[in-house]
Amino acid sequence: MNDKPLLLDDLRRARPLVQVITNYVSMDLAANALLAIGAAPAMIHAPEEAAEFAAIADALVVNIGTISKTFFEGMLGAAEAARAAGKPWVLDPVGAGATRYRNAAIEALLALKPSIIRGNASEIMAVARIAGLNADQAAPKGVDSQHEAGAAKGAALALAQNLSCVVAVTGAVDLVTDGTRVTRIANGSELMTRVTACGCALSAVVGAFAAVTPDRFAAAVAALEAYAIAGDIAAEASAGPGSFRVAFIDRLASLQGAEILERSKAYGA
Amino acid sequence: MNDKPLLLDDLRRARPLVQVITNYVSMDLAANALLAIGAAPAMIHAPEEAAEFAAIADALVVNIGTISKTFFEGMLGAAEAARAAGKPWVLDPVGAGATRYRNAAIEALLALKPSIIRGNASEIMAVARIAGLNADQAAPKGVDSQHEAGAAKGAALALAQNLSCVVAVTGAVDLVTDGTRVTRIANGSELMTRVTACGCALSAVVGAFAAVTPDRFAAAVAALEAYAIAGDIAAEASAGPGSFRVAFIDRLASLQGAEILERSKAYGA
Amino acid sequence: MNDKPLLLDDLRRARPLVQVITNYVSMDLAANALLAIGAAPAMIHAPEEAAEFAAIADALVVNIGTISKTFFEGMLGAAEAARAAGKPWVLDPVGAGATRYRNAAIEALLALKPSIIRGNASEIMAVARIAGLNADQAAPKGVDSQHEAGAAKGAALALAQNLSCVVAVTGAVDLVTDGTRVTRIANGSELMTRVTACGCALSAVVGAFAAVTPDRFAAAVAALEAYAIAGDIAAEASAGPGSFRVAFIDRLASLQGAEILERSKAYGA
Repeated sequence: MNDKPLLLDDLRRARPLVQVITNYVSMDLAANALLAIGAAPAMIHAPEEAAEFAAIADALVVNIGTISKTFFEGMLGAAEAARAAGKPWVLDPVGAGATRYRNAAIEALLALKPSIIRGNASEIMAVARIAGLNADQAAPKGVDSQHEAGAAKGAALALAQNLSCVVAVTGAVDLVTDGTRVTRIANGSELMTRVTACGCALSAVVGAFAAVTPDRFAAAVAALEAYAIAGDIAAEASAGPGSFRVAFIDRLASLQGAEILERSKAYGA
Repeated sequence: MNDKPLLLDDLRRARPLVQVITNYVSMDLAANALLAIGAAPAMIHAPEEAAEFAAIADALVVNIGTISKTFFEGMLGAAEAARAAGKPWVLDPVGAGATRYRNAAIEALLALKPSIIRGNASEIMAVARIAGLNADQAAPKGVDSQHEAGAAKGAALALAQNLSCVVAVTGAVDLVTDGTRVTRIANGSELMTRVTACGCALSAVVGAFAAVTPDRFAAAVAALEAYAIAGDIAAEASAGPGSFRVAFIDRLASLQGAEILERSKAYGA
Repeated sequence: MNDKPLLLDDLRRARPLVQVITNYVSMDLAANALLAIGAAPAMIHAPEEAAEFAAIADALVVNIGTISKTFFEGMLGAAEAARAAGKPWVLDPVGAGATRYRNAAIEALLALKPSIIRGNASEIMAVARIAGLNADQAAPKGVDSQHEAGAAKGAALALAQNLSCVVAVTGAVDLVTDGTRVTRIANGSELMTRVTACGCALSAVVGAFAAVTPDRFAAAVAALEAYAIAGDIAAEASAGPGSFRVAFIDRLASLQGAEILERSKAYGA
């Protein structure tokens, strides 16, 4: 695990430019999380410029939370440009399975080969179904997961293998796989589920880590670990979700490699 | 007043899924207020999926603060679907009276029979005029009220009676009516007017309460009371609007029925 | 410098209505900054109503951060209406130079004669190039400045002279010019660069000051000075960017003229 603090240090040295096409609810938190971890956010989504900008950016993050026709066009153009330029791009399939429109958007985005998919268990299981894979269980209700991350292990493995990507399933214990390796991360506070867009902002941070290493599995593990450990530290001094959110951004900004080494509850499985 | 703490408890047990089609400014605060009070927010507005999702959700909230063509289409579809499914839906007519476009949108939404309308005094008076009711006074300037809630009592009663809905007028003293009953709530801090979207997030919380009881009058009263009392408690320890906003979310999350019983300044009138 | 505290007092007495057409990321912070400083924000952008509302508002702020087709239409209509009504309007050219679409939008907006342009050094240099002026250096990467404000002095002077407007360049030391006078402001915390949309919210505050005096140069200087000094005070008690943002809003709300006089590091140059 000695390489993970180094990835955080690499990120801060490189200050990668991360283009984020995300939902309205998460834009503020995602941009602030990126600034706090040491990246440079750019929220650029219009179809007229999203692809042009993706060629400049170091990584792209696409989140369908409040998807609409024009955002979807921008997503497709940017993902295509990122792929063409060999830049990593992260897909956050918010609310997968909730509506036909959402499922059709995910199907089109999967065809553009995301480097990393980050979602909760219900979403990852729904994405596997959309990809035509023989995945696990029932449809989610709304945008919150009805399952623990471990329940999506089969779906995550199938997706990672079939799409040649990394899949990160977040929950009380997170799970990351590239189709072969599986790492679980038992860090993270329950308060993170009580702040809106905490998962969406994590996807943005995954993009920042993916910008500084060609090893997407290591990038996803390092991002989830750093994020969850900042959450652990922030939760210790928080009176509720409002103060937690504030402390969390402070802690992401001050996070040190030594804290990650000391607190990590990551393990292979 | 013994039933109001119970409604809060019901809400937390049921964790209703509340679909919110709201303005960009309020999305973050509205989602966080819903999470804090114990509901599950879903910000889903695209015309392609808003109606489909409204059939799954337990309540719908429509806020026209930054309305645009596509949001308006989503609002109409979702409100129609909510009505057809017998789900409650809340209208927040931000800036009613300020422009012709806004007034036309409100007129179309009123035809879809909102269960509850929540606005400030100037907005409720403007909505009554739009509904063709012989209501009180002058047009508002911008989106802030020029009047105390009590000034809109006539407009609120007329709207409630003619549209068979509940009307909640917020201000220094709030007023809720179903056309027959009138309750006033004297809780709430002046700091709430100095945090943007505090009223919009309240409308979202009204939707959460309406999801757990068929009595919309009781739902609106309980929502306004809980919200204002959380504001009272939060204001006691706040140095300004920034820290108030943080404390307010903490206090919404920790709010107990006993605090509501102890602090309520609700009275019939 | 004795007139600057007075402008803050004027602003709080007048409570100007400021229409803000800004990017999604900044809407929350911009509205809260306006409320804190003592203005009334209205985020109204739809093409169907933006121009109508601009005639009611006391000032207009246009920020192209997440510009799209419909927002752009609203911007053009509102800027035209503000100009026709003799109301001041502020342009924040976020990401100028980054894409062709962005540059074309800026070119069209410059033709509508902004009263004040507020950006970082890279943006102001890019705007000067777009205006066909023989300005300084290389294109920016993303939306953060690659240069100190002073590096854009030539571009700022050229823009101010050719467009008969005021140009405010923010950075570690800010620079304001009307083409003749130049004032630098050495206040402001490095933490302001680590909170997303801090510059965008400043542009909104510039609009509020411009609403209360016909002297746009004095308005821009007073706005930048008040904003940076609130930042200085807030930074003293902040553990990181999360807590800084909260304290900053508190401090903007409590800012007194005497604090500005005491702490100002503004000087002619």
